[in-house]
Amino acid sequence: MKKLFFLSFLLINVLAFSQTQKFIEFPVPERPAGQTDVLKLKCEPIDTVRIAFIGLGMRGNEAVRRYMYVEGVEVVALCDMLPERVDSCQAILKKNNRPAAASYSGKDSWKKAVEREDVDLVYICTDWLSHTDIAVYAMEHGKHAAVEVPAATNLKDCWRLVNTSEKTRRHCIMLENCCYDFFEMATLNMAQQGVFGEVMHCEAAYIHDLRWLNFDEKTGYWDMWRLKYNTGHTGNPYPTHGLGPVCQILNIHRGDKMDYLVSMSTNQVGMTEYAKEKFGEKSEYSKTNYKLGDMNTTIIRTAKGKTIMVQHDVTSPRPYSRLHTVSGTKAFAQKYPYELIALEPNGHSFLNQQQMDSVLTKYEHPFSKEIGELARKVGGHGGMDFIMDYRLIYCLRKGLPLDEDVYDAAEWSCIVELSEQSVLNNSAPVKIPDFTRGAWDKLKGLTFAE
Amino acid sequence: MKKLFFLSFLLINVLAFSQTQKFIEFPVPERPAGQTDVLKLKCEPIDTVRIAFIGLGMRGNEAVRRYMYVEGVEVVALCDMLPERVDSCQAILKKNNRPAAASYSGKDSWKKAVEREDVDLVYICTDWLSHTDIAVYAMEHGKHAAVEVPAATNLKDCWRLVNTSEKTRRHCIMLENCCYDFFEMATLNMAQQGVFGEVMHCEAAYIHDLRWLNFDEKTGYWDMWRLKYNTGHTGNPYPTHGLGPVCQILNIHRGDKMDYLVSMSTNQVGMTEYAKEKFGEKSEYSKTNYKLGDMNTTIIRTAKGKTIMVQHDVTSPRPYSRLHTVSGTKAFAQKYPYELIALEPNGHSFLNQQQMDSVLTKYEHPFSKEIGELARKVGGHGGMDFIMDYRLIYCLRKGLPLDEDVYDAAEWSCIVELSEQSVLNNSAPVKIPDFTRGAWDKLKGLTFAE
Repeated sequence: MKKLFFLSFLLINVLAFSQTQKFIEFPVPERPAGQTDVLKLKCEPIDTVRIAFIGLGMRGNEAVRRYMYVEGVEVVALCDMLPERVDSCQAILKKNNRPAAASYSGKDSWKKAVEREDVDLVYICTDWLSHTDIAVYAMEHGKHAAVEVPAATNLKDCWRLVNTSEKTRRHCIMLENCCYDFFEMATLNMAQQGVFGEVMHCEAAYIHDLRWLNFDEKTGYWDMWRLKYNTGHTGNPYPTHGLGPVCQILNIHRGDKMDYLVSMSTNQVGMTEYAKEKFGEKSEYSKTNYKLGDMNTTIIRTAKGKTIMVQHDVTSPRPYSRLHTVSGTKAFAQKYPYELIALEPNGHSFLNQQQMDSVLTKYEHPFSKEIGELARKVGGHGGMDFIMDYRLIYCLRKGLPLDEDVYDAAEWSCIVELSEQSVLNNSAPVKIPDFTRGAWDKLKGLTFAE
Repeated sequence: MKKLFFLSFLLINVLAFSQTQKFIEFPVPERPAGQTDVLKLKCEPIDTVRIAFIGLGMRGNEAVRRYMYVEGVEVVALCDMLPERVDSCQAILKKNNRPAAASYSGKDSWKKAVEREDVDLVYICTDWLSHTDIAVYAMEHGKHAAVEVPAATNLKDCWRLVNTSEKTRRHCIMLENCCYDFFEMATLNMAQQGVFGEVMHCEAAYIHDLRWLNFDEKTGYWDMWRLKYNTGHTGNPYPTHGLGPVCQILNIHRGDKMDYLVSMSTNQVGMTEYAKEKFGEKSEYSKTNYKLGDMNTTIIRTAKGKTIMVQHDVTSPRPYSRLHTVSGTKAFAQKYPYELIALEPNGHSFLNQQQMDSVLTKYEHPFSKEIGELARKVGGHGGMDFIMDYRLIYCLRKGLPLDEDVYDAAEWSCIVELSEQSVLNNSAPVKIPDFTRGAWDKLKGLTFAE
């Protein structure tokens, strides 16, 4: 009762504070006693990483294929809702002369796969809404968790991931492949070597016309989960592809932190237009009230006074873009629609192709030098997926901290709910929690273990 | 304890979102009795438009030169702080075998020029802060006012322009030349002909590295007014170049209206870095506390659920850009860094050069067809300045409504103060006034008089 009183007292304070500051603010749960942060977490080296793959549809099937090229791994379990997808992945193993893995299919079968004693890493490629449950269950059963984007779709789940990783001392990495794309890595390298001067503003996006997939009943997303999510939610439900690389450039929770955001969406028009054309005016799809606006624009301010503009549009007929714009006091770069760089003292013009090649060669990221050639052969979005896999297994085998930690997963994912809350409140500013609970300035810049 | 935490978490969520997030809102002054709106205002035709040019520095001098190619005008007065600038413009008249104009120089001399009985149009190219005073004075003396951008730097002055135009029934047009650039006009034409389907989102910007001009004591802005303004203000002080063309595409106050905005700025770093390099660490310029952030990003929502993203950066080493991005349910276009268009059913890819040429020819704007060739010869930002001049004089001579009205001037300019207010209040949402006071839906779409 005393606790309840204290909590309600705290609650009133929080509300009063947020009113004065005009922020919407969510409480940061206290870190359980005895629990410490997992910054630069090192775990026991694993000679051969035994993996359970959960979710073998679009991303999972591709992942199994790529892992045939990764040294020091064993696929011990394959799990999906549909047995035929499990069989398809078993065929990949067979074709590569690997031992068959244990097969799991059907609802909740993932629990059995995760519980296996011989699993070191659970690799999660399911629909968005099940990501956190599976990752938490994995860590609670002593496994490391690698989870597709977004790792969580709400703040509560972000904190579950953070608390579980801290409690169990297991890795929880979000599979943000775009951090490993070549231009992103080159600009990160340029930023770390001071080429941009002080980076002041970045732009990120997920602009990808997915109408055909969202409305595909047969070969689209399992049980049309993405359309269902977009029906019930506004804001930016998928921010991490653009956000990950620019947060790395801005050293988020490694010297700076995201402080607050504002978010604004257009009305929804494009999905309904598409549904009418494809299914007819009177179809259920045409009459559905989709909450997701065609375009969402969110602006984030960091504690050190930098800004990030991040957009989401999966409905408009536009060429693919993640923007990846980096603007500093000494240089500028953008990836879309074309890779372009401008450098002082000629900031008024973009480099020509020869100058670009020279800069991109000079600042090629060490990961790209090390494994880029093989990655391009193996493929997976042009190679970035393979570099991500390679780095994950490399660090696990050596017992090194992973390139991204659970705080990255929480920070990049929390924008899903926070952007929605801003949109639902006339774009009011929303505070972004410090998932490190005070340690965001402990590490001085982003570094990768070698 | 765990349950209690989630209970309080839930409770706070409910409480936080049940309170309505308030807007920062400025009162709309009541329209004086007997006064009506000036939508589609027609005035008496003027056979020869007699012009007083006020401010003959960068923009004014160029304007006088261009007006030598405009039919049906007479330059009757030339006015500037510096007599040598007046002389320089008199030389232009002489070279073109035109009669000399009356000369005015020194502080407040503009009043004498405006008061002249033989002036029909006052063409104002002074510093930002004097725009409104001169335009209001002109209208009060029975002249039409054409004023450089922004027409006003605060809400009070926006209302002064609106009220004075309504009271005096004189035109007040803002000289937003970018509305007349070729790609902007072509995309406007495409929008009006339905090529974009429903336009959902637009982007606008003024990204122009002006450090060299802002810090130039001799040949830069008069009395360094722009640096002074940027020292005292944050937000977006110069939004109209990008905003004008996209507001026209979105039919602002002709069926839709800007409803509210949020705005966010980075810290200021670039100007100080530049000042230190140019003037030394100990210089006054290096120690000045410039309020303007390097980058400002503002997002505007319209009553009909469209969004506009507008940026301002005059400090970072970046190639020039006004963005001019137009995203609809059937097509997409962007002007910077390269002119690109994508059309359904091939929205995933940009048109190739041949297809682009074909589309831009098909949708070439009537203004461009009519006067584009001469405009390109006369020049002035590639021709757009001349088309603007041509249209202004054409409509005045025929007694037709101008292409842009005082509400455009107020709407596009009010973002200066409203973005600053949002930035100063942690990016809180700010309501955008309806300068038509209820008539924003009276006109059905933007039309140009013929």
